[in-house]
Parts: sequence; C-alpha cells; structure tokens
Amino acid sequence: MDISFSVTASSESPTRTVVKARNFEMIVDEPPSLGGDDKGANPVEYVLAALAGCLNVVGNLVAKEMGIKIDSIQMDISGDLNPAKFQGKSDAERAGYKKIRVAMKVKSDAGEETLVKWKKAVEARCPVSDNIANPTPVEITLSKM
Amino acid sequence: MDISFSVTASSESPTRTVVKARNFEMIVDEPPSLGGDDKGANPVEYVLAALAGCLNVVGNLVAKEMGIKIDSIQMDISGDLNPAKFQGKSDAERAGYKKIRVAMKVKSDAGEETLVKWKKAVEARCPVSDNIANPTPVEITLSKM
Repeated sequence: MDISFSVTASSESPTRTVVKARNFEMIVDEPPSLGGDDKGANPVEYVLAALAGCLNVVGNLVAKEMGIKIDSIQMDISGDLNPAKFQGKSDAERAGYKKIRVAMKVKSDAGEETLVKWKKAVEARCPVSDNIANPTPVEITLSKM
Repeated sequence: MDISFSVTASSESPTRTVVKARNFEMIVDEPPSLGGDDKGANPVEYVLAALAGCLNVVGNLVAKEMGIKIDSIQMDISGDLNPAKFQGKSDAERAGYKKIRVAMKVKSDAGEETLVKWKKAVEARCPVSDNIANPTPVEITLSKM
C-alpha cells in the first residue's frame, strides 16, 4: 500500500520559502551570491540533504537484513550545475545537477566484498536516489489567489 | 561556469542524519511509523521542501524578467510511494515517489494566460524539478573507516 507525504510551502521573500512537513518547519533560502538573505540552506543543498538522510536509513535497514553491523556512516555529497539555464542566459545545458557524487565512509565489521553488495542494494532501494537517478513526473497545477 | 554545492552528513542513529551545508545544519529522521525518533522531517519530505524552495526562487526570477508582479506563492506538494521496495518486500514498483503533485496558488496582477507561460518557464528552469523529472547520475563511492 502506498504511503503519502506532503508539505505546505509559502514564499516569505523572492528567495525564501517556509516549508511545513507535519510538525517540522524548514527554511529554504539562497546565499547573497544568488540574491538571497541566507536564512537557510538553498534548494539544491536540500536535495543533497534528502539523499544523505535516505542513504543512512536504507543503509542501516539493508545492513540489518544482511546481518552486518554498521557503527557509523559519514558522507560527503556534492554536485555541480550550470546556473545559465535557471538564470535565463542559455539553454545549452540542463538546469539541475549534472551528476551527484557521494563519498561514503562506513565503519563496519563487514568485509569489502560484503560492503560492495550492501552498497548496490542500498542504491537500488533508496527512494531519494531512485527519484534523482530515474525520471519522476512533476505535475504542477496553478491557480490565482 | 558551473557552481558546486556540497554537504557533509553523519549518521546519528539508524534513521537520523545530521547534514551540514555551509553554516546550516539540517536534521533528517523518520517518524516512529518508519522506525525513527521523529527529530526532523524525513528524506522524502526534504525532497518536497527542495522543490518548493526552488519553484519560489525561479518563480520570482522569471516573473521579474516577464515584468509581472508576484506578491505571494503558496504550494501544497505531495507524492505517493510504495515502501515495499525500500523495505525489501517486493521489487514490483519503484522505490521513490511515482509522481509529485504541486498545487500552486499565486497572488499576482498577471492574467491567466501570462501565468501559464510563466509556469512553463519556471518548470523548465528550476534546477530541482529538472533533477527530479529527468535522469541524474548518482555516483556512490565507498570506503571503510
């Protein structure tokens, strides 16, 4: 059976958005270099945070199934994008990240070979990496207030 | 020229991840129904927050270019996913959101027709909707601590 997730969001400035998910509030903004007031991480940093959180949850779940112990997961996650498209300067390259790199360090009793299998399963089963790596329809409907 | 974004992330529990992006800290967790301690929004809610923040930034940028005034943007964003794959119960459906729906309410002096054009440009130019709607390689490298 499907699970639904939802948020409500409200523009507080041309760059700042306050997002509510259940009992949590998230502030998304842009740094001054991108025209914002720097009151929170920016949208594409939130994408990387989502991926980190997902890899941890699924990583621990898969480890439990495989009977391996994971004491800690550390991740450095990065991506590059060309701002020309979102800034309206050029359509030559895509708007978003061209690629996302995750350097994962794992403290575990498992051997290399087991961890490679673990990683494959984690990648395949992580909802966020699925939504990033594979096409996901985004349907926007618009109405005037 | 490309811009790079990066975060560092650390597992604080099997479900909780602390993510640092520049001077910001984000806590990602799961609700008790998904095995967590509910200390923050969950990974797939972070994806929706990222999309909301991006649509606001790009929405205001495009409006400025088109010479229209936007006083407020409100969004209800939701998505459904089947947890069977990430829980290791079935591979029949994908792990992530099947579709993401954005219901956007805009307070603006612009007419309907102009706003439809505006929406099209925003969708095409938003980095986060690009990364969700279109394939983006996620490259994970693994090392032991």
